[in-house]
Amino acid sequence: MVVIMKRDFTGEQLEQAIRTMEAGGVKVMVSKGSETTILGAEGNAAGINQEELSLLPGVERVMRVTEPYKKSNRKYHPDDTVIDLGGGALVGGKKLAVIAGPCSVESEEQIVGVAQAVKQAGASALRGGAFKPRTSPYAFQGMGNDGIRLLQEARAVTGLPIVTEIMSTDNVEMFEMCVDVIQVGARNMQNFDLLKQLGKTTKPILLKRGLSSTIEEWLMSAEYIMAGGNERVILCERGIRTFETFTRNTLDLSAVLAVKQLSHLPVVVDPSHACGKAWMVERMSQAAVAAGADGLIIEVHNDPPHALCDGAQSITPEQFEDLMGKLRTLAPCVGREL
Amino acid sequence: MVVIMKRDFTGEQLEQAIRTMEAGGVKVMVSKGSETTILGAEGNAAGINQEELSLLPGVERVMRVTEPYKKSNRKYHPDDTVIDLGGGALVGGKKLAVIAGPCSVESEEQIVGVAQAVKQAGASALRGGAFKPRTSPYAFQGMGNDGIRLLQEARAVTGLPIVTEIMSTDNVEMFEMCVDVIQVGARNMQNFDLLKQLGKTTKPILLKRGLSSTIEEWLMSAEYIMAGGNERVILCERGIRTFETFTRNTLDLSAVLAVKQLSHLPVVVDPSHACGKAWMVERMSQAAVAAGADGLIIEVHNDPPHALCDGAQSITPEQFEDLMGKLRTLAPCVGREL
Amino acid sequence: MVVIMKRDFTGEQLEQAIRTMEAGGVKVMVSKGSETTILGAEGNAAGINQEELSLLPGVERVMRVTEPYKKSNRKYHPDDTVIDLGGGALVGGKKLAVIAGPCSVESEEQIVGVAQAVKQAGASALRGGAFKPRTSPYAFQGMGNDGIRLLQEARAVTGLPIVTEIMSTDNVEMFEMCVDVIQVGARNMQNFDLLKQLGKTTKPILLKRGLSSTIEEWLMSAEYIMAGGNERVILCERGIRTFETFTRNTLDLSAVLAVKQLSHLPVVVDPSHACGKAWMVERMSQAAVAAGADGLIIEVHNDPPHALCDGAQSITPEQFEDLMGKLRTLAPCVGREL
Amino acid sequence: MVVIMKRDFTGEQLEQAIRTMEAGGVKVMVSKGSETTILGAEGNAAGINQEELSLLPGVERVMRVTEPYKKSNRKYHPDDTVIDLGGGALVGGKKLAVIAGPCSVESEEQIVGVAQAVKQAGASALRGGAFKPRTSPYAFQGMGNDGIRLLQEARAVTGLPIVTEIMSTDNVEMFEMCVDVIQVGARNMQNFDLLKQLGKTTKPILLKRGLSSTIEEWLMSAEYIMAGGNERVILCERGIRTFETFTRNTLDLSAVLAVKQLSHLPVVVDPSHACGKAWMVERMSQAAVAAGADGLIIEVHNDPPHALCDGAQSITPEQFEDLMGKLRTLAPCVGREL
Repeated sequence: MVVIMKRDFTGEQLEQAIRTMEAGGVKVMVSKGSETTILGAEGNAAGINQEELSLLPGVERVMRVTEPYKKSNRKYHPDDTVIDLGGGALVGGKKLAVIAGPCSVESEEQIVGVAQAVKQAGASALRGGAFKPRTSPYAFQGMGNDGIRLLQEARAVTGLPIVTEIMSTDNVEMFEMCVDVIQVGARNMQNFDLLKQLGKTTKPILLKRGLSSTIEEWLMSAEYIMAGGNERVILCERGIRTFETFTRNTLDLSAVLAVKQLSHLPVVVDPSHACGKAWMVERMSQAAVAAGADGLIIEVHNDPPHALCDGAQSITPEQFEDLMGKLRTLAPCVGREL
Repeated sequence: MVVIMKRDFTGEQLEQAIRTMEAGGVKVMVSKGSETTILGAEGNAAGINQEELSLLPGVERVMRVTEPYKKSNRKYHPDDTVIDLGGGALVGGKKLAVIAGPCSVESEEQIVGVAQAVKQAGASALRGGAFKPRTSPYAFQGMGNDGIRLLQEARAVTGLPIVTEIMSTDNVEMFEMCVDVIQVGARNMQNFDLLKQLGKTTKPILLKRGLSSTIEEWLMSAEYIMAGGNERVILCERGIRTFETFTRNTLDLSAVLAVKQLSHLPVVVDPSHACGKAWMVERMSQAAVAAGADGLIIEVHNDPPHALCDGAQSITPEQFEDLMGKLRTLAPCVGREL
Repeated sequence: MVVIMKRDFTGEQLEQAIRTMEAGGVKVMVSKGSETTILGAEGNAAGINQEELSLLPGVERVMRVTEPYKKSNRKYHPDDTVIDLGGGALVGGKKLAVIAGPCSVESEEQIVGVAQAVKQAGASALRGGAFKPRTSPYAFQGMGNDGIRLLQEARAVTGLPIVTEIMSTDNVEMFEMCVDVIQVGARNMQNFDLLKQLGKTTKPILLKRGLSSTIEEWLMSAEYIMAGGNERVILCERGIRTFETFTRNTLDLSAVLAVKQLSHLPVVVDPSHACGKAWMVERMSQAAVAAGADGLIIEVHNDPPHALCDGAQSITPEQFEDLMGKLRTLAPCVGREL
Repeated sequence: MVVIMKRDFTGEQLEQAIRTMEAGGVKVMVSKGSETTILGAEGNAAGINQEELSLLPGVERVMRVTEPYKKSNRKYHPDDTVIDLGGGALVGGKKLAVIAGPCSVESEEQIVGVAQAVKQAGASALRGGAFKPRTSPYAFQGMGNDGIRLLQEARAVTGLPIVTEIMSTDNVEMFEMCVDVIQVGARNMQNFDLLKQLGKTTKPILLKRGLSSTIEEWLMSAEYIMAGGNERVILCERGIRTFETFTRNTLDLSAVLAVKQLSHLPVVVDPSHACGKAWMVERMSQAAVAAGADGLIIEVHNDPPHALCDGAQSITPEQFEDLMGKLRTLAPCVGREL
């Protein structure tokens, strides 16, 4: 932490600033110039109340020097984290992980059918929503517990680990028992109570980036889970909100690169929600892999026009198989495999 | 709902589109031109699967004509809704409601002291956080249940109704018993499980706009609460996320005007969180009242430099009293009183 | 300027960093700690190539401490600048300046009629577009030189100074001769060649904020004009681009407050372009004055439904007169007059 | 165009709406239902004053059905446009075009050296700024005419066509004579006077997307140039402004896909300006090609730490050569070649 004093600070103000920093547990270096006086903190500045410091008389500005996230920070954990989605399907290593399945679980036939198709095409895990976050209270809200049961059935048939979204702390215990990877949706990225409770579970957490969350806030949400004891967090870029309306959101592939540098956690990309258009999924999946994503999460539906939600962005099992073939060709060009 | 057919649609495709609309419970008007064919829905189009329709072959575009929110819509409820915050303090009528208090409850002395000061200056209700949504897991998380108890004590001393933020469905029952107005923070605006449970309570809900929520999404979140049975929703504009970094967020005062036209619900403005700078609070409060807000929610702290959170945006009781005086002068110029 | 060295910097790297700073004309203070080493610049750091410095081996981060704008900076010019729009109509003092008129000049009858009406209602100056920046090449592009002549005629009849937008460096000379205040539109805020040429004129420049310009970039554009020798710049907030689509843009009234603190230049607000809806103009004008704007620029058209552009956001002369009455009542509440 | 009437419209209002539409040159289909009445326009609705129509009493809403851009619209020009950058270097066909060079021309040695290096590595054209749009008037503004001369010299030595940015209409004639491709920067995307004059030149125009321009506005700016007679427009995605600050801008690769569907014009991607960080260029270049870009424009500097501008985002000739090798491997995976 660096503190710049105002031009006309008094000796008393300087001492007060130093005392406030020292109370936070750091040693203070004072660098007095004829025009500018700078205070530098030696040691962990996390204990300093930055707002208090910035409000002191005589203080012009307080600048943070180190990242506020620790456990997710690559500086303190240089090697890539590799996470087992269940049954040996890894994410974060050389092999790409592809999670596929419908937006919502709709029936046994549907989810088992899609699971078999995506397994056949090489998917690592099955996704499917049982509890759905819908903008409208009048829209289909998901099958709930029945959906979880059908996912378990699809897992029994195919062996694919299952990934599904949690929407309430009420379900944490049940999810921990029943599913393989617990997804936190974009709208709940800063539902801190949920994050804290997930930090006490033993299952991998797929943490989607919030619609308007900065990369730092995203990593801080991962930090909530990790600080609770669960270090198995998979980050998921799914598009951010911008002024552009042609796509549902704006897929931020540079965030993938950024996060891979700042953090050791694996990152997957969701091109389906980012773009909101099925015809964009193939190309944006290829771009995501080229950008360095560790995997993808893709909406696949047996009958998109009759999907109970997100039909417009779902591809068919045939399109998924075709896409997997293309990714298999592309992956080695960027040092990966599928 | 209006459907535009593609130029080269077939008779079969037209029939399929009409059948899909009729299956949603509407009568369909067909308007065939030499170049453009338009289908118009008569009746409530809420039952139509818009995505299915838009994915049909032969369909170029589907356009919604009516708003998706009903209970919060002024069209079906022309008169302003007036809500009692508790003890007769109203929001939504001619008199402005001003909710004031510290970001966090920190001690008995602090919260009771601030409560007495803001009461004295004319505040309608006391705010104070007991459960705090903090970006960092390492930051002060609030006093929790103890904070609620101290708020109750401040209420006992001053008679002010208390407004505080809920962060988890686990606390709904306790909040309903203990507090007067339950606040939903910006980060939980689309925590739909929480909204649903609050829809079953009997307390007014102060619903903050999400950081990147459109006005329509905000009203849809109000709709979640109202659809559950609790129609006492107070909307709160608190700034949206934009590219500008000088202010913490960008206060969108035109949203106040917009919401007053689209909905009958009362709207208050939070200039403290919007700007993040105490010196901006006075002017932005005056602007909010001029824009037509039904009230304000303002952070007031006895000792901002030592506040455990948000000190930089808190004003002192003296500044608050001064502000109230200025608002008392301004209000009549826009047909309000304080 | 403050430079933070990497943890493992070498002595040679430190010397290189110091030399690079000294080459920029500053004295360097070195503050060596056991973990962190900080270099502070004494003196004007404008001569330092910040990018070069940040790319040096051993350098972790370079942080600017002072604002990059000088002539527009209140630090070096504490008093408010007051600018004469022409004929003694001032902007920047206690009295509010209201500039009013149609989006486009359409005919002699129209512009003279509107000019007389707004003059009658108390406007300080007449606005009217002769050269129009339209998104579509197929839309009405303005009357060009004929529009300028009609504005001059309206000025002759009413005595109101005229404000109109320049779109090309080709017209700088003509504008300097013919109009009173030269407007730079939002889309040209960073048309640096135009700004430079305007810096050599003697007329006040009304500089609109770009659609996605930060406050700092806006002040830097003012700096371009002022650095050229013309210090009479009037800033105009007219809404920024955000994700919200209900309003044409999002009016950022906190920017008015911010700019008044950072700079001595006067600031006016354009609620017409910001909101894009005539029914919002009255309330947002009142809010702008309450926020501290030095004036307003408002679109007034004799027959909005038949306006050649921006009819939806234009108010009628009657509505304008009514608005002026309301502003006259409001202004004293915030220490202004009209 | 589709018009929805208000519920309680009168017969006279209906007739007025129909007359207004007919005056715009279309035939009107009326579809009267018991609750909703819809008017549909047959024929080219470009002549209708949409704002006038929307302001008529009795009219609820006016919705545009067709895109406002014609010449750039793929609907009326299904085949991809292929443009010769000069000397047979094509963009828009199967072969990727890579434009490379320094941000600014700094000296003969520098520009000729970089030109030779990028030519050797397989670049299609040389970029280099002679007139620089800088946020600060105190920053290096480019070498101006001398820079153009040095670019011509580099072309003479290498045979590479030269691409450079125009900042003022004053230079249109000179640029047409001296350079091969005229670049319009992001800040000038809606400098309509410049676009109009470029529409009369015979040189290809590289049109960068504005920092906050929608895809539709971008195509409308292309339309300005094309409507003037110059149909050789190359679009360039270079990142948009969002709330994220880790990267300089947010590269919107889905816009590449979108534009390829909406328009027949070629699209290239500028990863250097989008990200602002040299270490991101390789991966984002690969992602851009995977997404379907027709080419790239990349900043290459012989000595990035001493570059007069944008050093932080420039790669070295060695890194460029390495990148070209990687793109050569990747391109065939997405049906392209280099």
